[in-house]
Amino acid sequence: MRVDGVSYRTVWQNANGSVGIIDQRWLPFRFETVEVTSTEQACLVIREMYVRGAGCIGAFAGGAMWLAAQEAASETDTLEAFRGAWGQKASQLAGTRPTAVNLQWAIERQFEEAGRAESVEKIVSASRTLAAKIADEDAEWCRQIGQHGVSVIEKIFDEKGKKGPVNILTHCNAGWLAFVDYGSATAPIYEAFEAGIPVHVWVDETRPRNQGARLTAWELGQHGVPHTVIVDNAGGHLMQRGEVDLVITGTDRTTHTGDVANKIGTYLKALAAKDNGIPFYVALPSSTFDWKMKDGLEEVPIEERDGSEVGVMTGLSVELPPKREEEEVEIVAPGSPVANPAFDVTPRRLVTGLITERGICEANEEAIRALFPEK
Amino acid sequence: MRVDGVSYRTVWQNANGSVGIIDQRWLPFRFETVEVTSTEQACLVIREMYVRGAGCIGAFAGGAMWLAAQEAASETDTLEAFRGAWGQKASQLAGTRPTAVNLQWAIERQFEEAGRAESVEKIVSASRTLAAKIADEDAEWCRQIGQHGVSVIEKIFDEKGKKGPVNILTHCNAGWLAFVDYGSATAPIYEAFEAGIPVHVWVDETRPRNQGARLTAWELGQHGVPHTVIVDNAGGHLMQRGEVDLVITGTDRTTHTGDVANKIGTYLKALAAKDNGIPFYVALPSSTFDWKMKDGLEEVPIEERDGSEVGVMTGLSVELPPKREEEEVEIVAPGSPVANPAFDVTPRRLVTGLITERGICEANEEAIRALFPEK
Repeated sequence: MRVDGVSYRTVWQNANGSVGIIDQRWLPFRFETVEVTSTEQACLVIREMYVRGAGCIGAFAGGAMWLAAQEAASETDTLEAFRGAWGQKASQLAGTRPTAVNLQWAIERQFEEAGRAESVEKIVSASRTLAAKIADEDAEWCRQIGQHGVSVIEKIFDEKGKKGPVNILTHCNAGWLAFVDYGSATAPIYEAFEAGIPVHVWVDETRPRNQGARLTAWELGQHGVPHTVIVDNAGGHLMQRGEVDLVITGTDRTTHTGDVANKIGTYLKALAAKDNGIPFYVALPSSTFDWKMKDGLEEVPIEERDGSEVGVMTGLSVELPPKREEEEVEIVAPGSPVANPAFDVTPRRLVTGLITERGICEANEEAIRALFPEK
Repeated sequence: MRVDGVSYRTVWQNANGSVGIIDQRWLPFRFETVEVTSTEQACLVIREMYVRGAGCIGAFAGGAMWLAAQEAASETDTLEAFRGAWGQKASQLAGTRPTAVNLQWAIERQFEEAGRAESVEKIVSASRTLAAKIADEDAEWCRQIGQHGVSVIEKIFDEKGKKGPVNILTHCNAGWLAFVDYGSATAPIYEAFEAGIPVHVWVDETRPRNQGARLTAWELGQHGVPHTVIVDNAGGHLMQRGEVDLVITGTDRTTHTGDVANKIGTYLKALAAKDNGIPFYVALPSSTFDWKMKDGLEEVPIEERDGSEVGVMTGLSVELPPKREEEEVEIVAPGSPVANPAFDVTPRRLVTGLITERGICEANEEAIRALFPEK
């Protein structure tokens, strides 16, 4: 996607053997890229959330394993010693964010696929190829999600007598910043925009952490897609007034029966969409399906995060440049306890459809299995 | 209600002829009271929102008219000149917040009731009495709302086998700070708390302006009522998990047919309550009924406020005392447009009941008119 007119992915390989990333910590107020050159630095990058989002973390972990392979090769003399050193560095990477599924998945895949080669040199080379493949796959899945999802937007545009824009509401950031390119929820939106279908996106602020106001708004703005930021409270009202044609969100985990775990507040938007007869779609690469859980409401563990995410707000100080810096302010009555559940589960009955890299299906076990018969 | 153990109202009369108020601009970070001594200062107090909330503005306007009467009396020699001066000062007051219904209502009532007296001295004296009466009436209505509403909480407590706490979710600030005492939505909660029924309040942060995290959390904390602040996104999830027994909100305007206009986001909570079989009550003094409008969704005008309320956050800087000050930070991606509808309308079909000073009724025209047959 574009930043100041230049095409970017969230993760890339450099010719000098390093891995490039967008440092997402400073967005939307500063755009910075970082050249990651060591395993130690890569651990910091994941732990301190320079990169975040399932697809983006997975792709970076793939690249970090290539960095680790280069390091291990320079530090050891035999294939056996290399494997030991590479494994040790991988453990360091794996420990940075223990709950990030894509992190473990990318590391294991490096061992299983690249680690199969017969010499140190071949492993390092295979690791580089695989890191690129993981990133390309992620981007390709998202691109395909966009190609399938755009039909939903196109249909609404036709139903409106080709009078635009098609107003799409999204919650949180399931944009390209969370993946390698295109995003999941945003992929159909970018696809429609490129195809000349007029779109306008209602961007939920997405408390806490404000990924909507910070990241989704920024990436849509950089790409030139018309959008408006609203508080999370406003979506229902806009739907009542006929100002929302379609809701598309991402998901952190969707059961193979169609229940959708996503950023807290998604359920409220799904209820409002249902109440107003507005289609509610969830976009996801198939890697986000949980093939074991049957009942999302009963089984998906909901992470309870620290209250400081609610009680402390980060933003750009309102001063004259160049004094403007990011600052933290406390925004809750001192002494008042805070609870911070991070996700909620939207039951399948509220979900119109799932947009995957293989196509769109209804949110139920039969339809999902029909699209992924090998699972 | 209590602040640091001392009983307060939001507005009071002083023996020296001034009007005392809590300066709500600095809450929850600083508690300050102000002695208002002139019409000019009173205008500033309303315009700059030292006081806010329908009942509180009405009571303060009553007191400000008494200040204006005292001033007019000292500046003029005849009854006719007094009336002219009083009227001019009243116009200044009326122009401070043109959409605040209670402001106009209190000013007109002063003219109609106190203005009827036959001498300047008697008018000034009657104005003082009426100002006190307006405040007392407001407090009394809220107290009665509490007495009627507590039965709802008591019934749930009994249904839970007297195992507490009763978990009550509220949105925005319909607390005593918005009135003279007790509040509307909070009145039944305070009543239950005083009666020894264990209660716990989920306080919606209430973006934008954050009246929940700032004001409701503060006043509940000062009074010792157990509560927890959550983001507006979290309420639906808590309801799904059985952690909410009851929702009570206030309202800015309720049609005599039962449609409830209130702070943006109320509708989403009403939907979630319905979806989870949780009672959803709205507490209001009868002065908040609109006896003309029939269809809230079609007819209630929704104020579109400035986007800076969404894009700029005010809080206490995270520094060591005594350097801690309130600061503003920008929290939306630079350049991204912001929309800020301030209210939404919850249709009557989602409202379990209305708690008024005369009792509880269903949210429909027949039930409301049965309780207020004179309207």
